[in-house]
Amino acid sequence: MTCQPQSLLSARSRLSLTQQHICPNRLISSSSSLKIESRDQGTKFTGDYKKYAVRDNQVMSYFHDVPLDLDLESKTANMIVEIPRWTNAKFEIDTKAVGNPIVQDTKKGQVRFVKNLFPHHGYIHNYGAFPQTWEDPNTAHEELGDIFGDNDPLDVCEIGSNIIQTGEVKKVKILGSIALIDDGELDWKVIVVDVHDPLSNEVLDIHDVFVKCPGLLETTRQWFRDYKKPDGKPANKFAFNGAYKNQEETLAIIQECNRVWGKLISGEVKGDGLPVIENSTISQLPGFLDSGFNTAKLLNNPVQPDAPIPSEIHKPYFCTTD
Amino acid sequence: MTCQPQSLLSARSRLSLTQQHICPNRLISSSSSLKIESRDQGTKFTGDYKKYAVRDNQVMSYFHDVPLDLDLESKTANMIVEIPRWTNAKFEIDTKAVGNPIVQDTKKGQVRFVKNLFPHHGYIHNYGAFPQTWEDPNTAHEELGDIFGDNDPLDVCEIGSNIIQTGEVKKVKILGSIALIDDGELDWKVIVVDVHDPLSNEVLDIHDVFVKCPGLLETTRQWFRDYKKPDGKPANKFAFNGAYKNQEETLAIIQECNRVWGKLISGEVKGDGLPVIENSTISQLPGFLDSGFNTAKLLNNPVQPDAPIPSEIHKPYFCTTD
Repeated sequence: MTCQPQSLLSARSRLSLTQQHICPNRLISSSSSLKIESRDQGTKFTGDYKKYAVRDNQVMSYFHDVPLDLDLESKTANMIVEIPRWTNAKFEIDTKAVGNPIVQDTKKGQVRFVKNLFPHHGYIHNYGAFPQTWEDPNTAHEELGDIFGDNDPLDVCEIGSNIIQTGEVKKVKILGSIALIDDGELDWKVIVVDVHDPLSNEVLDIHDVFVKCPGLLETTRQWFRDYKKPDGKPANKFAFNGAYKNQEETLAIIQECNRVWGKLISGEVKGDGLPVIENSTISQLPGFLDSGFNTAKLLNNPVQPDAPIPSEIHKPYFCTTD
Repeated sequence: MTCQPQSLLSARSRLSLTQQHICPNRLISSSSSLKIESRDQGTKFTGDYKKYAVRDNQVMSYFHDVPLDLDLESKTANMIVEIPRWTNAKFEIDTKAVGNPIVQDTKKGQVRFVKNLFPHHGYIHNYGAFPQTWEDPNTAHEELGDIFGDNDPLDVCEIGSNIIQTGEVKKVKILGSIALIDDGELDWKVIVVDVHDPLSNEVLDIHDVFVKCPGLLETTRQWFRDYKKPDGKPANKFAFNGAYKNQEETLAIIQECNRVWGKLISGEVKGDGLPVIENSTISQLPGFLDSGFNTAKLLNNPVQPDAPIPSEIHKPYFCTTD
């Protein structure tokens, strides 16, 4: 069977997808059989750097081709790690570049690093995104009113013991989420744990994280509230009074963002500044590339030694807490 | 003039030393002219690793030969950095080994790493010691009664912006201190900032740290209170109700620890388990080596690639806070 975005399918097909969910290619739908490597191009910590997902020596899109593989029974999905815990470089899937590599975000021509918000060192989680999800910038949130999505894949915070490297694809257990309003845009942060982490057996829902990891969820909220203050921006706000959504509610959010991604990839969403939809796995849709990505062209920039991280990135920033 | 520990000097000499303080060798008494390198031996992150202080290709003792250079006018002294901020390996000056290299502390044959006490990543300061100071394990503290020193050089927390590497000698401004009681021993932590850090111009005393770096001193107290809890130990306590001593009081503490070190190095202190007193700069004292350390013998273990840091060292530990 050829899998397609949910919105294009019949009711019967949607029903059958409830458990197996949207999967662009059964060959890679099981995480255990996912053989995705990542391939660096250019010089890390510069605007020239790109990290592509590669399978069988062919570039695939981190955004569209890596399967979400949401499993409502085991409450798991695939996560792409963009930023390893305790690091500062703001790596993210480039939704506008063909092939959707991971790049370091830039601002005014400079690569971005998140500031160290004392007492924290860079990001406090392994931070990344769910593939095949999208926060729609064109449709107001039905409960929140005048709040729109941030035009990016759904953000994910992995709370396990290990440091996970940029570009790794991990099967994670979904635990809960918090609705950040970042620069006025809705920007869910989903809390997950690597299914192979020992903690995964101890946390069945968001409440268990409060119990087993005291301080983690409160600190997470505080970090996302304050992390742009050192750049002179105001504190971020949260929808739903900053309360964490539980597992069931979060699964529904992921399903919705997956559905909305399905509309994007199928070409239903129109407008400026939207992500590219080229992909190599979802046939019969407008962005599908019969011959896949032009791997030889995309992987033509040899990897170079990392650029030095500017010493000011190590500075801790202090702001009054409340 | 040949400088000697204060206790060996006449009242007149002591007076003249009030400002220039104890200095084993005028040639290296000014930090600007200190040309101390550090030289690695063996495999980092194993018990085999040693980092020696070296000047003019001769080993010198981090403990006894690097000058404290306490300046009561500028409120500065030399600090030896043992543990860079945001790292876990417990490097420290080995007071019992000839030449006093920096080694990684071991326990039951295993090299020690400090646990990540959530939300912290390793040590939250550049951590180290003042050379030519010693916390006397044989004499009870005159105010605290039945509390004795920890038999180590005085500990120092550098709060500046940069990450300072193991073995570096830095001129620091002294700001204040807190009296940790660690495993029942008195273990002062002196708060300082690198004189070349921009923060140094903004903080003249401990109160300025409360103002300019909100949360830092409270977090420092909490970190030292809790950092052994993940190893199953109880919370540490503080003398003086956990209050920070100011700059003036701290300068007196450093002077006292320098005076007591003078007693040690002069052979006045007897007992088991004391530090070695061999040195290459303080002539006319029992530990002075006329020909210096046997550098060829001490530097005979070629440096090897670092051993991997065990992945469990990256784990965050949670403990309830109060």
